[in-house]
Amino acid sequence: MKSKITIIGAGNVGTHLAQRLYKCGHQICQIFSRTPSKATALANRVNSQGINQLKELSLDADIYILAIKDDATKTIAEEVSFLNKYQKIIAHTSGSVPSTVFKNHFEHYGVFYPLQTFSSAQTVDFEQLPFCIYGNSPQTQTILKKLAESICPNVYLINDEQRAILHVTAVIVNNFSNYLYHIAHDICTDNKVSFDILKPLIQETVRKISLASPKEVQTGPAVRGDANTIARHLAFLAQYPEYQKLYKILSSNIEQQFNKDS
Amino acid sequence: MKSKITIIGAGNVGTHLAQRLYKCGHQICQIFSRTPSKATALANRVNSQGINQLKELSLDADIYILAIKDDATKTIAEEVSFLNKYQKIIAHTSGSVPSTVFKNHFEHYGVFYPLQTFSSAQTVDFEQLPFCIYGNSPQTQTILKKLAESICPNVYLINDEQRAILHVTAVIVNNFSNYLYHIAHDICTDNKVSFDILKPLIQETVRKISLASPKEVQTGPAVRGDANTIARHLAFLAQYPEYQKLYKILSSNIEQQFNKDS
Repeated sequence: MKSKITIIGAGNVGTHLAQRLYKCGHQICQIFSRTPSKATALANRVNSQGINQLKELSLDADIYILAIKDDATKTIAEEVSFLNKYQKIIAHTSGSVPSTVFKNHFEHYGVFYPLQTFSSAQTVDFEQLPFCIYGNSPQTQTILKKLAESICPNVYLINDEQRAILHVTAVIVNNFSNYLYHIAHDICTDNKVSFDILKPLIQETVRKISLASPKEVQTGPAVRGDANTIARHLAFLAQYPEYQKLYKILSSNIEQQFNKDS
Repeated sequence: MKSKITIIGAGNVGTHLAQRLYKCGHQICQIFSRTPSKATALANRVNSQGINQLKELSLDADIYILAIKDDATKTIAEEVSFLNKYQKIIAHTSGSVPSTVFKNHFEHYGVFYPLQTFSSAQTVDFEQLPFCIYGNSPQTQTILKKLAESICPNVYLINDEQRAILHVTAVIVNNFSNYLYHIAHDICTDNKVSFDILKPLIQETVRKISLASPKEVQTGPAVRGDANTIARHLAFLAQYPEYQKLYKILSSNIEQQFNKDS
């Protein structure tokens, strides 16, 4: 079933979402961005109309999707609250904003959250990513779920509390792991060793947790209580005080937690 | 060229290495393990002789590979030092032990270090992993390099200093990332959210650094200075004090470092 959708926001999420929805046969009525050139550029790609004023929003769409900065959600929801008297559905795409941000202004609202890390330059594989859906009524939830299922095979019904948990854990597994890669990259570059040598190990670390829980496959000096190796690593890291501090905390957490639990 | 090799140690690394060397056409003369059943079991799989006393070591092999606990390397090297008068090559498989551990006892020594996380239950892909080689003379280095190249396409000449850097960074990208996955797994399980939902994100995080440096693809609340989201996450993590502390440090490191550098 073809839906009529307007996308508010032409950043990474808005762009990837608009293109995917369009490709899967939906009609993209309008694209809003405060930057006229961004609105027009994306609109042209999805056979839509670009606008840069919220008052230009037409009533053609059935669903209005906010793909904007988290902090802006409340203000924009107020600004477009006139859509409510036409029974429009509004949804945001944020992992961290509660759906209740819409409560005072809309009867039909929800969340349309693709759990993935988006970059403008890289393609997004909608066949793989999990789509987290919430609607404030069974009807709205069904509509948003069907829309998600039309662009992605992995759709989950996730309420605000569950989404908050996914968001904090997503930061941990994505942003913090990437920061660990950055530390390793920094140390390798500093010492003229190729970071590429570590890439198969990074891939294997991820492959392992597809087969067993992270706890079951934990290895390394901390979990086996190898104090000599830890001391040697800490001595080397003295030249990087921030990294040394982090190494110490992570090792001691692993040591404590895995001994406590076992 | 077929080499004659004896493997000292029948743990994860010894087992995977013996099997790979055997499969690639080398002769495995003996397998040593203090546990007779382990020595015999592995020896049977690679058409070799299992022994559990170092004095039973024969002189048939040209290369003796130690695949033992780091801390045991020095002692074992002394115990087998009689091999030196027969011009044998000795090498260990450790990421963290300097090659000079052999200096006082051997003329021909080196390192034969597969940089990967080994589990007994899981297969090891020797086509992907990087093999780090060092020899104390050009001749020994050439022999060990050729042996490594016969079982693995990615062989690097890595001296003790470089290997120490790879070892500490391997702990950071492998053990510490896995611990972050464990934290997320723990929080998800506690709150009845499926950890599986996060797996595509974890895979994408790794895919991204195959195309750009970790720094270039860093995302999340810390790097964009989103204090509201960080505060919300920290409030949620109050029930997990250890995780909260770690979240705080990682976020502040990311914030500081990426602002400092930019």
